Amino acid sequence: MIDMGSYLEFCKTELQAYLQGLLHTDGLATRLYEAMNYSLMADGKRLRPALLMATAQTFGVELQRVLPAAAALEMIHCYSLIHDDLPCMDDDSLRRGQPTNHVVFGEAIALLAGDGLLTEAFALLARPIPEVPAERQLRMIQILASRAGADGMVGGQAVDVERTGGQGTLTDVQFIHLHKTARLIQAAVEIGSLFPDLDEKAQEALSTYGEALGLAFQMVDDVLDVVGSTSELGKTAGKDEAEGKLTYPRFIGIEETRRLAEETIARGQEALHRCGIHSPYLAELQSLVLVRSH
Amino acid sequence: MIDMGSYLEFCKTELQAYLQGLLHTDGLATRLYEAMNYSLMADGKRLRPALLMATAQTFGVELQRVLPAAAALEMIHCYSLIHDDLPCMDDDSLRRGQPTNHVVFGEAIALLAGDGLLTEAFALLARPIPEVPAERQLRMIQILASRAGADGMVGGQAVDVERTGGQGTLTDVQFIHLHKTARLIQAAVEIGSLFPDLDEKAQEALSTYGEALGLAFQMVDDVLDVVGSTSELGKTAGKDEAEGKLTYPRFIGIEETRRLAEETIARGQEALHRCGIHSPYLAELQSLVLVRSH
Repeated sequence: MIDMGSYLEFCKTELQAYLQGLLHTDGLATRLYEAMNYSLMADGKRLRPALLMATAQTFGVELQRVLPAAAALEMIHCYSLIHDDLPCMDDDSLRRGQPTNHVVFGEAIALLAGDGLLTEAFALLARPIPEVPAERQLRMIQILASRAGADGMVGGQAVDVERTGGQGTLTDVQFIHLHKTARLIQAAVEIGSLFPDLDEKAQEALSTYGEALGLAFQMVDDVLDVVGSTSELGKTAGKDEAEGKLTYPRFIGIEETRRLAEETIARGQEALHRCGIHSPYLAELQSLVLVRSH
Repeated sequence: MIDMGSYLEFCKTELQAYLQGLLHTDGLATRLYEAMNYSLMADGKRLRPALLMATAQTFGVELQRVLPAAAALEMIHCYSLIHDDLPCMDDDSLRRGQPTNHVVFGEAIALLAGDGLLTEAFALLARPIPEVPAERQLRMIQILASRAGADGMVGGQAVDVERTGGQGTLTDVQFIHLHKTARLIQAAVEIGSLFPDLDEKAQEALSTYGEALGLAFQMVDDVLDVVGSTSELGKTAGKDEAEGKLTYPRFIGIEETRRLAEETIARGQEALHRCGIHSPYLAELQSLVLVRSH
């Protein structure tokens, strides 16, 4: 049994130290870099990097080696938050307990800060990683791009935007949650699983675990938006309903959403067990996601 | 002597054929894909892909092998146009002779279409390329990311936004043009130069050529914005002055800008000659950029 609270804190501290001073310029675009760092250094849970670290560590990979990849993943997450918060999207003013990027830097710079972080993520993931063959690193980049792009997160966001305020169906919710949220969380596990030299079956099991964790995470997030407070969340509570977002509770209620999250987590657990992967890290992360909903 | 007009037309046709149907989905994000394809398939000069192809072809690389990289570069260019045209940026309504993306699809989908194209570019460039070692391909991705990102195009765009409407200096113009425009054109040559197995000196010479071509291209573009017509340009003419953009003509006049463009092109030519690289393709592309300004 590991103390997951301390472990997450440890991952966060390591990541923070790595990110500190990573993005700097001696050119004229100082305001842009300030905006990028403003969102990147904001106090977040850092779930995706921690998940990547936990996956790699499960197979004995040294933490320092995965930090650039973990940072790349967090940059993608951060860029998506900046763009999501823009007036033409969700128009939100609070994120991670601080004013959103465009509130501080204006819309144009916020838009570019997002573009900058998205692009920098790939620069980072393309830097040679010791002991990882270049072919496998290309695979990491393909995964990051496909999970984050139009076939993944961006696609989910687009359907979310189109359906917001409208009727929608449970199928729409499933698509949105799978793509908007689960795909990038899944990528964290998938990329982490490419540091050790695992066989295809193990990689697939981990991918299933990641997808399930991501889906459950968004289900719990839906629940929290209803039952949580703004100060607890670090973002505006009750926004989903106010904006007419499609969420699980809207279609199946809070209790059933909680149950579905548990069932989904169990599916991921099952995939790992069938493959003989026993990881206290990955198991604890599942519990942590679920416990938030209660 | 080659007929550069026909060569560019040939490159354009090959690229168009490759792009056709490349981005499609069987998921729910059909509108997003429509928006991405709307801008990607619009009739453009395709200068960057052609430059990449011309560079590779100079060293006997087969055209088919470079198409994915050329397409990736065009996706980056397209995403930057979509984001630049947004109301919070240049707020333009005409691009490549058609209504801008957000005019047709709305701001939210346009923003996401840009994000999608940017991300897809890296997915494409990370697909294994026959006969190119994976290490060298990682280098291509690093170049694309650093030339397109906050240290390159996005940084130039950010400083452009900040200085627009203000006083600015010639140093600002130089920074903006180098980063906003030249860096991605330079990347086209640099990535093209990684298909053959060239030594470092040749790669550096080609990089210098690409930077010079990119700078001259933007100088000529500044001139065209003053002396050209909207129908010729496929975008709104006279916009730079109306918006208070920093341009070369504003600081040194039209004639001096033309002269500086010629001098810059000569610098690139010189770099190639010193290295013994004689390419009718690359020479003709230089002439083509200059001839537009007269």
